[in-house]
Amino acid sequence: MPTPSAQLAAFAAHLRFEHLPQAVVRKTEDLLVDWFGSAVAGHGSRPVASIARFAQVMGAGQGAAEAIVSRTSNSPYLAAMANAAASHVAEQDDVHNGSVFHPATVVFPAAVAVAQAMGASGRDLLTASVAGYEVGIRVGEFLGRSHYKVFHTTGTAGTLAAAAAVGHLLKLDAQQMLHALGSAGTQAAGLWEFLRTAADSKQLHTAHAAAAGLMAAYLAQDGFTGAAQILEGPQGMAAGMSSDADPAKLVDGLGTRWATAETSFKYHASCRHTHPAADALLQVMQQHRLQPDDLAGVVTHVHQGAIDVLGPVVRPVTVHQSKFSMGTVLALVAQFGHAGLAEFDQHFLSDATQALRDKVTMQLDAEVDGAYPRRWIGKVTVTTTDGRVLHGRVDEPKGDPGNTLSRDEITAKALRLAAFSGGATATEMQQAVDRLWHVAQWPRVGRLLGADT
Amino acid sequence: MPTPSAQLAAFAAHLRFEHLPQAVVRKTEDLLVDWFGSAVAGHGSRPVASIARFAQVMGAGQGAAEAIVSRTSNSPYLAAMANAAASHVAEQDDVHNGSVFHPATVVFPAAVAVAQAMGASGRDLLTASVAGYEVGIRVGEFLGRSHYKVFHTTGTAGTLAAAAAVGHLLKLDAQQMLHALGSAGTQAAGLWEFLRTAADSKQLHTAHAAAAGLMAAYLAQDGFTGAAQILEGPQGMAAGMSSDADPAKLVDGLGTRWATAETSFKYHASCRHTHPAADALLQVMQQHRLQPDDLAGVVTHVHQGAIDVLGPVVRPVTVHQSKFSMGTVLALVAQFGHAGLAEFDQHFLSDATQALRDKVTMQLDAEVDGAYPRRWIGKVTVTTTDGRVLHGRVDEPKGDPGNTLSRDEITAKALRLAAFSGGATATEMQQAVDRLWHVAQWPRVGRLLGADT
Repeated sequence: MPTPSAQLAAFAAHLRFEHLPQAVVRKTEDLLVDWFGSAVAGHGSRPVASIARFAQVMGAGQGAAEAIVSRTSNSPYLAAMANAAASHVAEQDDVHNGSVFHPATVVFPAAVAVAQAMGASGRDLLTASVAGYEVGIRVGEFLGRSHYKVFHTTGTAGTLAAAAAVGHLLKLDAQQMLHALGSAGTQAAGLWEFLRTAADSKQLHTAHAAAAGLMAAYLAQDGFTGAAQILEGPQGMAAGMSSDADPAKLVDGLGTRWATAETSFKYHASCRHTHPAADALLQVMQQHRLQPDDLAGVVTHVHQGAIDVLGPVVRPVTVHQSKFSMGTVLALVAQFGHAGLAEFDQHFLSDATQALRDKVTMQLDAEVDGAYPRRWIGKVTVTTTDGRVLHGRVDEPKGDPGNTLSRDEITAKALRLAAFSGGATATEMQQAVDRLWHVAQWPRVGRLLGADT
Repeated sequence: MPTPSAQLAAFAAHLRFEHLPQAVVRKTEDLLVDWFGSAVAGHGSRPVASIARFAQVMGAGQGAAEAIVSRTSNSPYLAAMANAAASHVAEQDDVHNGSVFHPATVVFPAAVAVAQAMGASGRDLLTASVAGYEVGIRVGEFLGRSHYKVFHTTGTAGTLAAAAAVGHLLKLDAQQMLHALGSAGTQAAGLWEFLRTAADSKQLHTAHAAAAGLMAAYLAQDGFTGAAQILEGPQGMAAGMSSDADPAKLVDGLGTRWATAETSFKYHASCRHTHPAADALLQVMQQHRLQPDDLAGVVTHVHQGAIDVLGPVVRPVTVHQSKFSMGTVLALVAQFGHAGLAEFDQHFLSDATQALRDKVTMQLDAEVDGAYPRRWIGKVTVTTTDGRVLHGRVDEPKGDPGNTLSRDEITAKALRLAAFSGGATATEMQQAVDRLWHVAQWPRVGRLLGADT
């Protein structure tokens, strides 16, 4: 019987476009377009620009892969590094609930860069991306909640996700794919400590995961070997970085359960842990026609993971940090009905936002915590200034598979992100997104954003 | 009171050549020449060649830094990656006992590449290297024995060591250096799992550490921020990867205790955990004039760390794996008086070696284990074919500070390594080593191995 790692590697190596249900293909196209918007949204971000500059200075100066935010070319390794840094900073990229893992920001930068370098077809890109999603999500589920308390799963599981996607494009066989996963997993890294001082590390984590995973796959193609059981072995990732890892999760429903299709889109431009409560607050305010001034207090009933990640952020001082402040997110939602990039940028520290923010608290809730991470339930208790106590509840926050975004909503979101960052003109972005919806017909993956400027 | 991380960062930023005792400068020169031999020894190694090819394909094609084993130029980032991969494969690079950390293979590749790119002076290179050693060794001591049971400390602590060295060359101030350590620590990775199948990951760990640490320092110079307490914070390295971390070790004797000078040279070309027993066996054999045929059984009395790392290797199938086989190392020492590269390459699987190998066992020893990791005591009990039971003991294996290598021995070792690998001709290597002994007088660090070929 092959080990769980070996089964996962074989699945990733042997996956074919013909195996994918149509709904999974369509969902992957949705995820790709949604990711592209997030990548363009990284334009103009200081930490993203730092990593993009580093990649440019250390890289090829030219190359077959596109660095999206800098509108330059580079080798696939360094383009993937820059694009992965770019895709996560707006906090608008997708998330898989059960694994608490953001697949797009590590899978697509690596896969697109290599597909461009190889001239792979759009179908190959989609198939490879599904391989990356399926592997990364299962690795995240395997590593479990104990892992996520200290480690940024997108940084750690992300190395294996990127390796699987790139390995698929490089046509690794099952044994080579296992080596690639081994080399990826032994580079897996990313700690939450940076949140405490609002440091820039989240962008470094995604850059690192995409680049290290890509490197692992290229090395495997060249005969470089990795640990055969990097995930579940006695000195592997779980041994070092988890206390509740479950190897059965690595192979859960391989080929029948499509974890890719379980992935959620982000509607608010904030940490996903804030979304359920934000939607529940919106529900209460709409149902009872409340205005922000009506709010005397909001208790959010949350899972422990939300407290772990958001708890340290009490008085955010940067836009990025405020996306991890439950109070700030709910304050923006209460005022504007949506916590988007523009709302954060213009209002995250306004007097009104701060006043509302300080009325919001988090409380651990047994039902919500028990359902997490498979379901992200939103529950709030609102006390109004006239003394009413109101309850709000959503079982699937906006963007979850049962409450998903339409293609028009995804397109509109991408256009909004580009307009906000200035990473592309409205015309450019509209054309790029229009083209990208037809990716399954592309004979070769070319530049996504048109020619160099 | 600054945190331990902040004190360590300030020390690394503020270190000046004038602060260094003469003995530390001389020792650092010794370590540099010894490293250079190990870097050249990586020539011709398959896994090293894979990483060097990857760096070349993804890199600049030209650049200000020297990739030693491929005799090419590249950006400092990718040259550091290739050279760090090269420096560890022969298992001849240095080790600091107390931290179980190999500083040279992560510090010098990063520091030399950046010094070449900047045209830094030899003194700047030496000072920066000491900063890297002092930081990396203390991080290794801090992470402790629990960390080393699962993690390859050279890969993890190595990211911070490389960041400190490069940060010093880039003249980061104390705050920037703290950011660099934060960005390095959040990329720290490297798991022992690969040993179980004799995979190539050790070369990837050093490549990754040097490159990620270098990147962290460049990013900090560009304003990119990192966690302020990546080491001791509640979601930092110790929280995620150690159960016995002691923050006091991060600042132990900063500026008065020179950990750099405590570093040991390797005499045998094998895992350092085998050296104390190897030297103890040699002592017994020399004292009692034993021949290999006289040995009926050898019990090595070892610390737990030796059992953790060497225990899984029972029947090595590759030269590299055999360097982690206590039995193989002692078999070579018994036959040839020294377990060098040539002995491994030609004899690691000979019938005589295998027969002797299977007579060697490891036993946990309370005294040896209690002294470890500060002292690596070697104790063996030899049973001879004529029924005698003999005991051997060394308190400092050859290469330790109290039993060190002379400059002539270091030069000879470097020449042997070059001859073995073919990475340089005897004349080239002699000239390069002769030049390198005068590094403190160099106005600018240039290529170590002469011009491109």
